[in-house]
Amino acid sequence: MDDVLAYLDGSRDAQLADLKQLLEIPSISTLPERSGDVARCAEALAGRLRAIGMTTVEVARTAGHPIVYAEWAGAPGAPTALVYGHYDVQPVDPLELWDSPPFEPTERDGRLYARGAADDKGQVHMHLAALAAHLSTRGRLPVNVKLLIEGEEEISSLHLEEFIRTNRDRLRADVGVISDTAMYAPGVPSIVYALRGIAYVQLEVEGARTDLHSGEYGGAVANPAQVLCEIVAAMKDPRTGRVLVDGFYDRVRDLDPAERAELAKLPFDEAAYRDELGVPVLFGEEGYSTTERTGARPTLEINGIWAGFTGEGAKTVLPAKASAKISCRLVPDQDPEEVADLIERFVARVAPPTVRARLVRLHGGRPAMTPIDHPAVRAASRALERAFGQPPLFTREGGSIPVVASLDVLLGLKTVLFGAALPNCGMHAPNEWLDLDSYFRGTKAVALFLNELGSAPDLR
Amino acid sequence: MDDVLAYLDGSRDAQLADLKQLLEIPSISTLPERSGDVARCAEALAGRLRAIGMTTVEVARTAGHPIVYAEWAGAPGAPTALVYGHYDVQPVDPLELWDSPPFEPTERDGRLYARGAADDKGQVHMHLAALAAHLSTRGRLPVNVKLLIEGEEEISSLHLEEFIRTNRDRLRADVGVISDTAMYAPGVPSIVYALRGIAYVQLEVEGARTDLHSGEYGGAVANPAQVLCEIVAAMKDPRTGRVLVDGFYDRVRDLDPAERAELAKLPFDEAAYRDELGVPVLFGEEGYSTTERTGARPTLEINGIWAGFTGEGAKTVLPAKASAKISCRLVPDQDPEEVADLIERFVARVAPPTVRARLVRLHGGRPAMTPIDHPAVRAASRALERAFGQPPLFTREGGSIPVVASLDVLLGLKTVLFGAALPNCGMHAPNEWLDLDSYFRGTKAVALFLNELGSAPDLR
Repeated sequence: MDDVLAYLDGSRDAQLADLKQLLEIPSISTLPERSGDVARCAEALAGRLRAIGMTTVEVARTAGHPIVYAEWAGAPGAPTALVYGHYDVQPVDPLELWDSPPFEPTERDGRLYARGAADDKGQVHMHLAALAAHLSTRGRLPVNVKLLIEGEEEISSLHLEEFIRTNRDRLRADVGVISDTAMYAPGVPSIVYALRGIAYVQLEVEGARTDLHSGEYGGAVANPAQVLCEIVAAMKDPRTGRVLVDGFYDRVRDLDPAERAELAKLPFDEAAYRDELGVPVLFGEEGYSTTERTGARPTLEINGIWAGFTGEGAKTVLPAKASAKISCRLVPDQDPEEVADLIERFVARVAPPTVRARLVRLHGGRPAMTPIDHPAVRAASRALERAFGQPPLFTREGGSIPVVASLDVLLGLKTVLFGAALPNCGMHAPNEWLDLDSYFRGTKAVALFLNELGSAPDLR
Repeated sequence: MDDVLAYLDGSRDAQLADLKQLLEIPSISTLPERSGDVARCAEALAGRLRAIGMTTVEVARTAGHPIVYAEWAGAPGAPTALVYGHYDVQPVDPLELWDSPPFEPTERDGRLYARGAADDKGQVHMHLAALAAHLSTRGRLPVNVKLLIEGEEEISSLHLEEFIRTNRDRLRADVGVISDTAMYAPGVPSIVYALRGIAYVQLEVEGARTDLHSGEYGGAVANPAQVLCEIVAAMKDPRTGRVLVDGFYDRVRDLDPAERAELAKLPFDEAAYRDELGVPVLFGEEGYSTTERTGARPTLEINGIWAGFTGEGAKTVLPAKASAKISCRLVPDQDPEEVADLIERFVARVAPPTVRARLVRLHGGRPAMTPIDHPAVRAASRALERAFGQPPLFTREGGSIPVVASLDVLLGLKTVLFGAALPNCGMHAPNEWLDLDSYFRGTKAVALFLNELGSAPDLR
């Protein structure tokens, strides 16, 4: 593998320049006005895949944003890896908090700052660089590789399942591979063996037909913003941090003592974590550690809330309507539809008759787990140890990658997840960044992983 | 007075055309980008006052928006009325709910639709028309008149008190007169004898330094939006509608049985009121009628609330900060600063140590009352009865006109309040309107009122 690794060392500047071009495209999937940019990003990605020598490359239309599909199938008899990633990104607001423009990739102190640098363009590009290194150096890959890079991950992968369902034969593989997760710490590679799912809803509370003058009408009708706050407040116990939505924990699989012991061994510095976030004190579900709270326990969080006058100054309005975006992170064996049902029932139970309250479902994804002794996990472990100089930690991830559950259900694939992003890298927030040393080591890890997979006889 | 009234009947078209010109100026005092329009409106008003024959007319600079001052002092020995009004208006958002543009005054079904039509340009203009009628017809007024028309009423009259304080001699008068209130019902004139005060604050709750990914960090830190909702929910009893801020009711003057009996006689149709607002059911403080709740009891209302992602779609962010605009309507003998103190202490008591919570004071105004047997009130009563064909009702108003307390404290003036706006006329909301019949009757009522004042020997 020295030739492949040397190629990667020799082509760093070109890799970085190429990645920057991808990051310049504002492929924000949730904003209708950006759909042209999303399409442009798909084409740019497909162009690169053709250039590095993938034999089939296609920009597949969907009812939403396109899916980029590519394959190289020149290793008959060898295992097939299905690499999933996404080229769409989160919105950038509040824009004023960015130190450099989100779509002008900027290097500072060994980091590359841009929206999508970590989530997920930078990590998709890591795979492209590794494939290019193999193909340029040896003219072939150690295994068959299929790539499935979607443009709707940040909006709940709206059309991905349908694509997978209608392309089931074509997508057949032996293992799923995803790099859309963070390393445990700088220099510490990690393999994620469990992901939380998500149930994302919007609560709307309506009162009068129009906004009212709070002097004239204040006191006479229920205020939808007040009622919204009451409903939201009732959803969690402020003392224990427990979710109070009836039945919320019914399907939560308890952490067994062995796993709790393993998680407790992770080198987690609570004081440093707190100081980095800038919160006065950490807070979460009573009876669990921060590692467990963010990886192994379900949550309910307000993602947004709005009503009435929110500008400068004082407007004496009694709002006609109040809204909140609410998402739950789910763990095995919770089900997103069922959790949305529970919230809907809870709202119906606690909302007073003085307002109209309703729940809109925005999206959902199931939680997932991959056994630690899966052969692809072991292959990844060996590759990461060589690329980073130390064996990976095995962690649970708090975020949601619903496709992991889809690959399992629709294609029967277990997925191995390892990433090169670092904690606190600003995914979904201003000043998102990618650590360049981790990225370059990551390209080697992927190249080595493909090689390890090729000699994993128990995989097929 | 037939000549004066005939003049008003004969000049309706001119009055209306003139009012429309004033309404076309977007004098929104709270928006910095509109300060040029606010100044333009002041000049337009001053031009009209000069044209109708006021002897002194001045656009007085302040540290904020200008104050228009005018006087006619040609009746030595007669009483002096100080007429207060404001030419600034509320913002217009949400703009999409207006049926015609807010600054293109539009007549529909006997109503004039425009921002400021009722609050307060239309009602200020009613006084201008009455003054013009007297001066054109007779060359003089029955009493001395001073006009004080400010441009900051909607932003808490920031510089009015200072102006009154430094112009105390010049503003000396026998009674204050304000038309910035609504009639009880179409065709039913009203004199307002009590006004609620206001304490307007902004609550800010801060957590982490930046917005966080709700998957990665959800469960580990307190969510400022959740905590904000908890604090807001704790401020009121959802069952009784009582404000739970400690000490909030301590200074509230109880309604005496005689006044409650009088208020109960007002022809209030609860079902019609509910249906017009479009709420499923009315709701307010336990033990009080809607009339009492909106006029004679204090309130606490959320005017605005915001945190995190509020756009289309789903963004999985854990917000760094959450804010709420909160205002209390106050009744005698509550004090706005004291109420803000109470809220501040309440927030400090209930906010958990997991966040930073602070209170910003946006503005305040004292509540006010004028005795029903005040000679100017009786003069207004006679004028209204003649102009509208029926005697006025005496009501308490839920809104706040802090200047009434300022005139009392700084100039020793009691104020008589009667208006020509109608209930539910969209003050502070989309589709604000002025009933034109009430406006024209109002111009006559003002003209008659000035005449009545001139023969009120007990006023000086």
